[in-house]
Amino acid sequence: MQATAELQVVPIGGGVSVRAQVTRVVTMLRERGFVVETHASGTNIEGDLAEILDTVREIHETLHAQGEARLLSYLKLETRTDKAPTLAAKRL
Amino acid sequence: MQATAELQVVPIGGGVSVRAQVTRVVTMLRERGFVVETHASGTNIEGDLAEILDTVREIHETLHAQGEARLLSYLKLETRTDKAPTLAAKRL
Amino acid sequence: MQATAELQVVPIGGGVSVRAQVTRVVTMLRERGFVVETHASGTNIEGDLAEILDTVREIHETLHAQGEARLLSYLKLETRTDKAPTLAAKRL
Amino acid sequence: MQATAELQVVPIGGGVSVRAQVTRVVTMLRERGFVVETHASGTNIEGDLAEILDTVREIHETLHAQGEARLLSYLKLETRTDKAPTLAAKRL
Repeated sequence: MQATAELQVVPIGGGVSVRAQVTRVVTMLRERGFVVETHASGTNIEGDLAEILDTVREIHETLHAQGEARLLSYLKLETRTDKAPTLAAKRL
Repeated sequence: MQATAELQVVPIGGGVSVRAQVTRVVTMLRERGFVVETHASGTNIEGDLAEILDTVREIHETLHAQGEARLLSYLKLETRTDKAPTLAAKRL
Repeated sequence: MQATAELQVVPIGGGVSVRAQVTRVVTMLRERGFVVETHASGTNIEGDLAEILDTVREIHETLHAQGEARLLSYLKLETRTDKAPTLAAKRL
Repeated sequence: MQATAELQVVPIGGGVSVRAQVTRVVTMLRERGFVVETHASGTNIEGDLAEILDTVREIHETLHAQGEARLLSYLKLETRTDKAPTLAAKRL
């Protein structure tokens, strides 16, 4: 089913800047073909629920393979059956 | 890979009490065999990352099938490669 | 001290649409003079930490006074001492 | 007004272990007299809304004064007017 989401990935134990890792997360989300909107507190995503969740798993595995020792992710998920959830409809 | 998580599912548009839905979420998590710890702000989970995420999808689909029109989920995920993440090790 | 934040206020027990309440939250944040950026999963805020937190309190009190029975808020807060945190610097 | 909350403070840019900082956060919450329940994904708090938020500010200021360069906090807040919110009532 269709979903909207917000993902923020926080690497722990590296430097004070996490920009490089965030850039890789956004690149992976774009490559998967989701509607993606970056903002200052995370990345908003629109797409299939199962594909979004599978990409979250892939992001953790990829960042660990690239050397991250500890990763926290904060994910907001929304689904609804009264209409298709879209990022566009959620904006004020 | 092994992960720890916290899941809070919030149904929107029903009554002011969401206890029935939360109970169904916890039941589904227990039935899947995860280590599960309920608390006042969500449910902590320990298990395989892919299985946790797949269960989140299943929870959304099941609650919608049972009549919920709109669902928000708040998920914290943690993975680490320096040691196996467990709920027990994260408690003070 | 200066902080950046993301606030999402979720009223429970009303209708499936929460747009009216979200609009009031954003209006209150703008009236207080913060840098405010709305997006599909919340509102990003830049300003004084104590003032942001005081406004969160005021938002809960105001929405309850306007009839909301139950309110959940999800707040991400960031502070740093190596440089002033701004929303602009956090965007990719 | 009375509130329940969950607070998770994440220091960025130090070591992979954040146990020392979490311990200091919990100590400050206990010293303020809140009902406090620690768990694997944060600390649940019951008390006055304004006092909880003021303590979050104090925690950020104190940890920075003790040397942390960058702090992220994840706060869930709940208030309700139909009955007094308590941690006890929110547990399954």
